[in-house]
Amino acid sequence: MSTQAVTSQDIILTGDRTTGPLHLGHYVGSLQNRIKLQDVCRQYLLLADAQALTDNMGNYVKVRDNVLQVALDYLAAGIDPAKSTIFIQSLVPELPELFSYYLNLVTVSRLERNPTIKDEIKLRGFERDIPSGFMTYPVAQAADISAFKATVVPVGADQIPMIEQTNEVVRKFNASVNQDILVECRALVPENGARLPGIDGKAKMSKSLGNSLTLGASAEDITKAVKMMYTDPNHLRVADPGQVEGNVVFTYLDIFDTDTAAVEELKAHYRRGGLGDMVIKRRLEEILQTLLAPIRARREQLAADPEHVMGILRAGTDKAREQTAATLDAVKRAMGIVYF
Amino acid sequence: MSTQAVTSQDIILTGDRTTGPLHLGHYVGSLQNRIKLQDVCRQYLLLADAQALTDNMGNYVKVRDNVLQVALDYLAAGIDPAKSTIFIQSLVPELPELFSYYLNLVTVSRLERNPTIKDEIKLRGFERDIPSGFMTYPVAQAADISAFKATVVPVGADQIPMIEQTNEVVRKFNASVNQDILVECRALVPENGARLPGIDGKAKMSKSLGNSLTLGASAEDITKAVKMMYTDPNHLRVADPGQVEGNVVFTYLDIFDTDTAAVEELKAHYRRGGLGDMVIKRRLEEILQTLLAPIRARREQLAADPEHVMGILRAGTDKAREQTAATLDAVKRAMGIVYF
Repeated sequence: MSTQAVTSQDIILTGDRTTGPLHLGHYVGSLQNRIKLQDVCRQYLLLADAQALTDNMGNYVKVRDNVLQVALDYLAAGIDPAKSTIFIQSLVPELPELFSYYLNLVTVSRLERNPTIKDEIKLRGFERDIPSGFMTYPVAQAADISAFKATVVPVGADQIPMIEQTNEVVRKFNASVNQDILVECRALVPENGARLPGIDGKAKMSKSLGNSLTLGASAEDITKAVKMMYTDPNHLRVADPGQVEGNVVFTYLDIFDTDTAAVEELKAHYRRGGLGDMVIKRRLEEILQTLLAPIRARREQLAADPEHVMGILRAGTDKAREQTAATLDAVKRAMGIVYF
Repeated sequence: MSTQAVTSQDIILTGDRTTGPLHLGHYVGSLQNRIKLQDVCRQYLLLADAQALTDNMGNYVKVRDNVLQVALDYLAAGIDPAKSTIFIQSLVPELPELFSYYLNLVTVSRLERNPTIKDEIKLRGFERDIPSGFMTYPVAQAADISAFKATVVPVGADQIPMIEQTNEVVRKFNASVNQDILVECRALVPENGARLPGIDGKAKMSKSLGNSLTLGASAEDITKAVKMMYTDPNHLRVADPGQVEGNVVFTYLDIFDTDTAAVEELKAHYRRGGLGDMVIKRRLEEILQTLLAPIRARREQLAADPEHVMGILRAGTDKAREQTAATLDAVKRAMGIVYF
């Protein structure tokens, strides 16, 4: 991900649905960048419990409990609450209020054409039984982003239509009140577009696919995960030539091993034969143990005092509301529906 | 409208979209009953500015300005703020918050099947360009009603699907949290189902049709309106037999003239011929002047001190929010998304 485009004038909004603790895929795909970006500009981190409810209405205990879990992951990984504002979405009433006004600016057919929504509907098998809250969530996202006057939103390439929808709402609102109240944003898309694959070799690491390694994983979990890791199914004997492409161990080494020369040498050796899976797995395991040990230790320490962590979220939410209240007030003033 | 079914245990929610001052049709169709019902049970009167915006996004000045106008109509007609709680919808943030949660309980196809929405889409010529806020407004209404734990909602027969939608949301929510948090409501439908026709004989009196007589109409406006009133187009000479059915003057006399025997006599005379339009119009005009003169006087008096009226709305809104905040808190507690 390029951070060069982001300047101190930018405001970032990003976050996670609180449906499970974060894993190594989140660390590589977003957390690492947030940790860098919090030194560049203002950054709001949304614990999206309300959005998670849009398709977890029967499962709200999970959604609530993971607010703390995700917060622990953030803090343990290196998010600094003095630099990044972490807040709980359901405690910011300005967001649904903006959402309800923005709904008037987006037609039903426009929502139905949203490619991300189309894909998700297929993926989740909703067909015509899509909850309205799910269908309208691009508008809720427009509320989240514009409430903070965010200029930068880190997203995957598949989420670009959501950014376009937000900017459409921004432009339509500004045009309808003939004032520049809301601010357009731009997507910050990872440069290589790569996601960390699951330990089973599947393209995406995901808790629900059972192929993930959480940030709070124990030393034993890490050992087990690396042992189970997908390599080259045709590499049966150490002497055999092995394939590096699609071999999860090498994909991970490319990402986590800072000694790139050594990794290139291992790849060459593996390709020509004579290098066993055990050797490369041992190397990767050591790297992952080193990476995750301090995160796990901080996470355990933080988890021992949940009230302290909730206090951070409370303060973050208060700070977030200062901004959202100011935006909502400006929106309502521009619409002329301010009475007192 | 039967008020017998309403008891002191009931809670009524009703109100008006703030798109124009109220007229005689509102007086007959709803205001008179509210004035009676405010002595029977708790009654909340919603000045629906936010809902009016769902299809007036480019016209928000009208929506805002009519908040005061409708409030003046309420108070002038006899709504007593000590008995009825008058409040401004856009100042109750709990309503969009409940709305955003309820959206998860209603599918898109369910909204598309709503007969009232279907009719309105035809009427307004929206086709597929329906604003999402319009499509989802049955859910917003469910939020309005259930936020007050209203048990009675006065509606026209065509609005019954909206009540059914509200009760579906109530049942679905209660089932999803396995607690009886929200309360079902029932429709209070006018007994005769009759609407006051426009002065032009069209079925519905409506400001946009230009066939209405506002509650604040001047004496001259009333004279002019009665003069223009549709009678029997074939009743050309006084001596001719005239038709009473569809004759707006008689329809109005049936509603506003308390001397029913005299009205029956006039009808018989008109039917056999020899009774001119001038005579029946003069009688109706006198009745309407007598009815509207004190309302107009009170309205002018109140309009001279808009700050006093806005103070009533402010107090009403504060009182309304006590109830909506309690309901939202119960809803969030039941969903388990309460953190502090």
